[in-house]
Amino acid sequence: MYEYNHGGNAAFEAGKSNIIDLSANINPLGISQSITDAIIKEVSNSNNYPDNFSTQLRQQIGSFENVNPDWIFCGNGASDIIFRFPRVVQAKKVLVTAPTFSDYQRSANAFGSEIVHYPLTAHYNFTVTNEIIEFIQREEPDLVFICNPNNPTGKLTEVSIIKEILNCCEKLCAKVIVDECFLDFVKHSREYTSKIFLEKYSNLIILKAFTKMFAIPGIRLGYALCTDRALLKNLYFHGPDWSVSNLAQVAGVAALQSAKAFIKETEEYVSKERWRVENGLKQLGFKVFESSANYVFFQSSYSFDLHVELDKKGIRVRSCSNYQGLNDSYYRIAVSTKENNTKVLTTIEEIILIKGIQQN
Amino acid sequence: MYEYNHGGNAAFEAGKSNIIDLSANINPLGISQSITDAIIKEVSNSNNYPDNFSTQLRQQIGSFENVNPDWIFCGNGASDIIFRFPRVVQAKKVLVTAPTFSDYQRSANAFGSEIVHYPLTAHYNFTVTNEIIEFIQREEPDLVFICNPNNPTGKLTEVSIIKEILNCCEKLCAKVIVDECFLDFVKHSREYTSKIFLEKYSNLIILKAFTKMFAIPGIRLGYALCTDRALLKNLYFHGPDWSVSNLAQVAGVAALQSAKAFIKETEEYVSKERWRVENGLKQLGFKVFESSANYVFFQSSYSFDLHVELDKKGIRVRSCSNYQGLNDSYYRIAVSTKENNTKVLTTIEEIILIKGIQQN
Repeated sequence: MYEYNHGGNAAFEAGKSNIIDLSANINPLGISQSITDAIIKEVSNSNNYPDNFSTQLRQQIGSFENVNPDWIFCGNGASDIIFRFPRVVQAKKVLVTAPTFSDYQRSANAFGSEIVHYPLTAHYNFTVTNEIIEFIQREEPDLVFICNPNNPTGKLTEVSIIKEILNCCEKLCAKVIVDECFLDFVKHSREYTSKIFLEKYSNLIILKAFTKMFAIPGIRLGYALCTDRALLKNLYFHGPDWSVSNLAQVAGVAALQSAKAFIKETEEYVSKERWRVENGLKQLGFKVFESSANYVFFQSSYSFDLHVELDKKGIRVRSCSNYQGLNDSYYRIAVSTKENNTKVLTTIEEIILIKGIQQN
Repeated sequence: MYEYNHGGNAAFEAGKSNIIDLSANINPLGISQSITDAIIKEVSNSNNYPDNFSTQLRQQIGSFENVNPDWIFCGNGASDIIFRFPRVVQAKKVLVTAPTFSDYQRSANAFGSEIVHYPLTAHYNFTVTNEIIEFIQREEPDLVFICNPNNPTGKLTEVSIIKEILNCCEKLCAKVIVDECFLDFVKHSREYTSKIFLEKYSNLIILKAFTKMFAIPGIRLGYALCTDRALLKNLYFHGPDWSVSNLAQVAGVAALQSAKAFIKETEEYVSKERWRVENGLKQLGFKVFESSANYVFFQSSYSFDLHVELDKKGIRVRSCSNYQGLNDSYYRIAVSTKENNTKVLTTIEEIILIKGIQQN
């Protein structure tokens, strides 16, 4: 019934704390000093309850996203918000792509929604095409999750397609959640955000997280943008009070104070390193599906389990075998620091060499 | 649909940050240095995801509570766990006492359960009596919440009655949640805990929190004790992953390292001060319902709104007007530091004097 199926566990596994963990997609530039300073300063205020409505943080997010703070709901990580949605919508049928981030399906399962999978295939490079419209019209879901860029593929969905999805779902009285948790890692991200549709489409919800870009998965902080006030109120109703800790609230405020420069620096670093990792993997004989995000998605035709071999060498990557629509030939690797990326490429090269010798 | 109805907001209200906030029941001894030190040390580890199963923390709680760590589920505050329960039980009918902590009802409302109120009355000093058994047999709930000691009354329920409730609910296949979040503040708390029933009754769930005793409401950390493994697994299933932040996990571990001495010191301090506050209030003409916890519950027959007048003087107390079964003549005040308690008593005395003069 319950199975934990994410990456990023190495830090607390016995004997694994020194592993290079590339199974979670965290910004290689790490936590900024301003965030850690803000948290340390706030610790002594922990004897006060958190502001249930994250007022100051929402104002800061409003400025950063250029939206009305009243359109914002903050949660204990994006996963907290994802989990509330099937209940908020009272979703009978939820549409998710296959593959995609597993929590959409998990939240729908917990609520008891029927789940339909829109298949993304290697043939179309795992991208969402216009065919999804017909699929939605036929299936009539009341909640649609689009991860943009998608996890684990790193593939973007064009805004023109998102607009068609919104139109189509509006007619069906269905809500559309566009998860942009990785979008700030993408070059020219402004061309891909669905924020331009917020005012027109009250059935649109955009999800974002501090987790990945600001490298604070341990703190738990995410948010939703939406113009439907009743729906935002309902998000509070369908979860406990005080979900966002004091420390997460000040971490978020601090993160956003110099966010634009940090995001630009990150995007430039990541795109350079991603190119290097993708290129390296191609040269090592893997099929790489070019990613726009801070992780690399590829397929192996080698007969050994790459993640098992890498784990032995102190490197953790994400096998995609438990993603709906994929199998154990697919892998996802976070784009990490230059040093780590070089390490993973040389280690894979070594493994291939040794395995080749063993077979002969 | 959604209304925030708790105390403890003064810290982030505009112009109210210097108010003496006695509307939340936080340990007057404050946060211990070992907790703040542990959090500060952990901040740099925030780039790792939390251990979804709070392994180390559960071991520590297990030692402290003298129970198997596998019987423990940790949540983002006790309110997170409360909120999961109606869904975990798929509760059609939830029994709560009136008055009691409002989150039980709120969680049941969010799930859509029918709610039945077992009335506690001034006539019985707001205590739970054996009559609840007949009430349960008649109403046949599938989930029963007992807050022990009760909030806002500070009244204990005898373990003999809890045992009868457990027996009766076992026959109905109903779960019983005994919320002991304030029990560690109680003198001779061992005589009142339901932990002795955990092994025998798999339908028993005990709730506890770090919030009040360790004065860390801003951090969010609570836990449940239960021997039903399927139910514990279901608690994970019915909420997002990574609910408990890294910082909360280390705060909990640090809190428990010297917990016994700290709890004893707290209990002695609080019982002395509670006696002083209750006595003072009696002398000022209030009807005091003697509390066993770190808060005082009383009724006013004065014609003015005590909380409004105190707010003007920089003191926040909890009007109980929005508790089911109470009205605006009832109040709850946290037992605070000696200095604050003296301040609240002298301020109330002043208010009564001035109001008396104004009337004449």
